[in-house]
Amino acid sequence: MTEFSSCEFTPPDGDKPSRTGSRVHRCIDRFRWEGVVVQQYKSEAEHWRGVVRMVLAGESGERTAFHVRYFEVAPGGFTSLERHRHEHVVIVLRGSGEVQLGASVHPLGPGDVVYVAPEELHQFRNPRGTEPLGFLCIVDAVRDRPRLADVPLPGC
Amino acid sequence: MTEFSSCEFTPPDGDKPSRTGSRVHRCIDRFRWEGVVVQQYKSEAEHWRGVVRMVLAGESGERTAFHVRYFEVAPGGFTSLERHRHEHVVIVLRGSGEVQLGASVHPLGPGDVVYVAPEELHQFRNPRGTEPLGFLCIVDAVRDRPRLADVPLPGC
Repeated sequence: MTEFSSCEFTPPDGDKPSRTGSRVHRCIDRFRWEGVVVQQYKSEAEHWRGVVRMVLAGESGERTAFHVRYFEVAPGGFTSLERHRHEHVVIVLRGSGEVQLGASVHPLGPGDVVYVAPEELHQFRNPRGTEPLGFLCIVDAVRDRPRLADVPLPGC
Repeated sequence: MTEFSSCEFTPPDGDKPSRTGSRVHRCIDRFRWEGVVVQQYKSEAEHWRGVVRMVLAGESGERTAFHVRYFEVAPGGFTSLERHRHEHVVIVLRGSGEVQLGASVHPLGPGDVVYVAPEELHQFRNPRGTEPLGFLCIVDAVRDRPRLADVPLPGC
């Protein structure tokens, strides 16, 4: 089990075959894919809970300027409340929950699209769901490391 | 109605407000979003048919190194058979169909992920579906212009 933030800068170590040819990752169950490893957050922590992560593109020899990841937040779970310079584009694929963007909280359901602007404090949560909140999160391949909510901006 | 390829290099002209703040595009119907315009291919053409396109991120003031688009291929429709240096990452959201990757054809259904490698000849088709084949397609923001199948490689 690997532990890291949803916005982790450094990809986890491990098996990274160079699969640069075209390919199809068949969806073999509800949002689980052939050839894609389910990676887990620390199951108990102060600033995140109940989150798993799958990297669909960007760490297998692709040359894209972006990485595509799929996250699931279990009922009662949440990602870390954090900010960073790089942007997020999120598309909800399953379940329901909410996203905090700055001081605002927005409900989320399947198909909703979220754009997280640079340095926006944000957190994805599943406080009332009975199934996982699952979403794609697309980020630049080259990006800065997230800072938790209680870490001040550089120079402040 | 705007006409362009699924892999069009130059974004269509038109209203491009600079919306750099965080935002949520609510999914208001099955894969139609608040604040996202449905753009259409030419309805009758030799090398594409029955395809609509929505840009979810990348043309509204974002600074991402990628663009996120959503395409729907109507029953009987297909994208152009083409190749280019830039890569595609595709995630199927609805319907069924197939993708041609080089000389191979792969069936597609909801959740399937496709990586199209540089210079791979490719086409997305919906030959037998009764509903649209809908998929996200993520590309680098800076990318080369697609070449149709009968256009030879540079220098050939």
